[in-house]
Amino acid sequence: MSERLVIVGADATGMSAASQARRMRRAEDLEIVVFERGRFASYSACGIPYWVGGDVAERDELIARTPGEHRERDIDLRMRCEVVELDVEGRRVRVADLESGARYWQDYDDLVLATGAVPIRPDLPGIDADGVHGVQTLDDGQALLDTLERTEGRRAVVVGAGYIGVEMAEAMIKRGYRVTLVHRGTEPMSTLDPDMGALVATAMKGMGIELVCEAEVTGIRVGEDGRACGVMTESAEYPADVVILGIGVRPATELARAAGLPLGDSGGLRTDLAMRVRGHDNIWAGGDCVEVLELVSGRFRHIPLGTHANKHGQVIGAGIGGGYATFPGVVGTAVSKVCELEVARTGLREDEARAAGLQFVTVTIESTTRAGYYPGATPMTVKMIAERITGRLLGTQIVGREGAAKRVDIAAVALTARMTVEQMTALDLGYAPPFSPVWDPVLVAARKATAAVRNRR
Amino acid sequence: MSERLVIVGADATGMSAASQARRMRRAEDLEIVVFERGRFASYSACGIPYWVGGDVAERDELIARTPGEHRERDIDLRMRCEVVELDVEGRRVRVADLESGARYWQDYDDLVLATGAVPIRPDLPGIDADGVHGVQTLDDGQALLDTLERTEGRRAVVVGAGYIGVEMAEAMIKRGYRVTLVHRGTEPMSTLDPDMGALVATAMKGMGIELVCEAEVTGIRVGEDGRACGVMTESAEYPADVVILGIGVRPATELARAAGLPLGDSGGLRTDLAMRVRGHDNIWAGGDCVEVLELVSGRFRHIPLGTHANKHGQVIGAGIGGGYATFPGVVGTAVSKVCELEVARTGLREDEARAAGLQFVTVTIESTTRAGYYPGATPMTVKMIAERITGRLLGTQIVGREGAAKRVDIAAVALTARMTVEQMTALDLGYAPPFSPVWDPVLVAARKATAAVRNRR
Repeated sequence: MSERLVIVGADATGMSAASQARRMRRAEDLEIVVFERGRFASYSACGIPYWVGGDVAERDELIARTPGEHRERDIDLRMRCEVVELDVEGRRVRVADLESGARYWQDYDDLVLATGAVPIRPDLPGIDADGVHGVQTLDDGQALLDTLERTEGRRAVVVGAGYIGVEMAEAMIKRGYRVTLVHRGTEPMSTLDPDMGALVATAMKGMGIELVCEAEVTGIRVGEDGRACGVMTESAEYPADVVILGIGVRPATELARAAGLPLGDSGGLRTDLAMRVRGHDNIWAGGDCVEVLELVSGRFRHIPLGTHANKHGQVIGAGIGGGYATFPGVVGTAVSKVCELEVARTGLREDEARAAGLQFVTVTIESTTRAGYYPGATPMTVKMIAERITGRLLGTQIVGREGAAKRVDIAAVALTARMTVEQMTALDLGYAPPFSPVWDPVLVAARKATAAVRNRR
Repeated sequence: MSERLVIVGADATGMSAASQARRMRRAEDLEIVVFERGRFASYSACGIPYWVGGDVAERDELIARTPGEHRERDIDLRMRCEVVELDVEGRRVRVADLESGARYWQDYDDLVLATGAVPIRPDLPGIDADGVHGVQTLDDGQALLDTLERTEGRRAVVVGAGYIGVEMAEAMIKRGYRVTLVHRGTEPMSTLDPDMGALVATAMKGMGIELVCEAEVTGIRVGEDGRACGVMTESAEYPADVVILGIGVRPATELARAAGLPLGDSGGLRTDLAMRVRGHDNIWAGGDCVEVLELVSGRFRHIPLGTHANKHGQVIGAGIGGGYATFPGVVGTAVSKVCELEVARTGLREDEARAAGLQFVTVTIESTTRAGYYPGATPMTVKMIAERITGRLLGTQIVGREGAAKRVDIAAVALTARMTVEQMTALDLGYAPPFSPVWDPVLVAARKATAAVRNRR
């Protein structure tokens, strides 16, 4: 007898799970129904800033697979259909067809919640005005571009200086806007320690971005036409023809919450290692709507990233397909390109290590991406955090130019293997003059960190 | 009472050891005497092809520190002085001053052998003719450039297709030569499996290099002027105005051999983990004259590389300085740039795995360096070898364009941590569209390898 798998959300986790389950179980054995409230499926949300900035010419380049392609593989993908209620007891979801207005119940044997995240919209005057945009879904990106199309002014204010805020500030500069970035912290790129963020600030100013730090937004000024025309802080007002929110996102778990499913402190769903919602054998969840185990501090955290979402989908699909796979957790790796700079982090920042109850040493070194004498060698900065006494690597941050950021993967693997910085000094990393000084910058940092650990024992 | 440290060889290992020991012990406590038979110290031998090819304008850019700078730090560096005899019992070396012709004995308390490697010169007719060049030391590089200076013809034949041979072939093309590369194997870049080497062959041909594969050199044709004018194989002859040997190098251990120090099968010195020559508490050795423990197969091998040499020097210097450090071994990582291609390997090739008695599966995947929609995304190929049954990673090879090669570091760290390919599928690697597809190519290979391991269990 055929079973039915229902998936809520048709982006990275949802469609990876659908595809993987379909590879393992034929249509006669497993019916797969996917509900997506938006107009797009299987797209790269991470690519939106590059589409807005013009590096990617066409929206459709961000779409990995069209709804039609999914349907050809016996996946019943229903676009513009929102799941509005979850009946755990009855094993069914209530669906609202946003086009026709129809509503209906859909039974399931297995359910996957892949509802993603939504941009945080602080409760401020004017926040819902026209011209205030979050950038999370492809629909969001399209809405922003539609606004830009019909807006004459060329002043953009970006609120928030995490990855999205910083990437969007650059994208708007590339579109020819005057850009002001308003944020709370002392330095932009809040995913880094402030000393590393300061390097990013310099690059952003060099690109012409106006940085307003340590500023709390108090409201959005709305013009007589009902459109946003400025961003207000406690001490100033910044005129804006468009406002972009880059404050962060929160898990989209209203449905799960209403159904009584277990949520963590961040509001994300809690799952086991096979990505089953805790206490529910036939409900799975993954992607931006779950919390993941962050392995360095041993805490569950909300770390929305496309690469995790894809892995979750793979694991869920394998489980539903009758196989076995697990997602052991993350170490907090993230990379980004900001103006000329490459920026990377993995593991814990100083404040995160402190919050986890860890004592640590930090070192920062300057080196180059290639051998100093090789054409194109550019400076790069590596910061390394190691546990006191044990010397275990806790985190690494990198700011530099071409070839700098992906070196963070070395530290990401070392964190996964729980290596000490001293063990790292002996790592057999690739060396040739076009790629690295004879001591790779990561090794230089590990050596200095080793000395610091020894001195603090 | 002051002790005396004598070091034989003033490049990476020798001068790193000297500098590290000096940092830890003052001149009143430790006298440091270094003998170097060549005219240069502390240079990057790996940079020679780029100097010959013109990417590096001046020889002196390859020199990290001049003899004068070393002497200012109380290191008694004696250039053009060759150590011709080692009296282990008497704790002294016999030195020949190549400039003055003087010979003398020098006592030591600790001795470091950092004599490096010499290019293999097969015993062939004509091999010692003028115009036949190895490229190992800066002196070798200078001698080659001197020959090119006074040679009118523009035909170069390179013998051997390892890293040096391939890099030198490209360097000579850049200098405007017609280049023929003659080698024994079926494909160039013998450090890769032939299927990956074939990708390199295509790139080399595209650059105009004539590749002669599966050819055994039988001799060098010498003209009436006593200069090399051609390279002969069993079936053909290739005219040459200059001949470059890239056949490989062997440890320069004549001195050690004559003194009865323990050598491995490759002729390299055998040391303990602190880089002391086995059975000799006060004799240390490192760099291209020693064998290193290759951790994947558990065998001692001769793997000459500047990055190992520097680490050895550091470890030796720390030991002599009264500290504690060890060199645990290597995993066989190497990267190289060939024409437009980046080439990388770590761990074992198929033939190496077989020779080590391992059973394995191999997979090869195609992916891209960046997200497919991001400007500058280029194809890259990853080959992965995993142990049968256990799934332990055994080796990884990469051929691609900008951004491809250094990804091998991920596999290098995973090998060090003895990870399985299945564990690797969950690695939290840096993802953003300018740096990687949402599944990093290394993860794609790990997933395919995991499936292959499961199928072969």
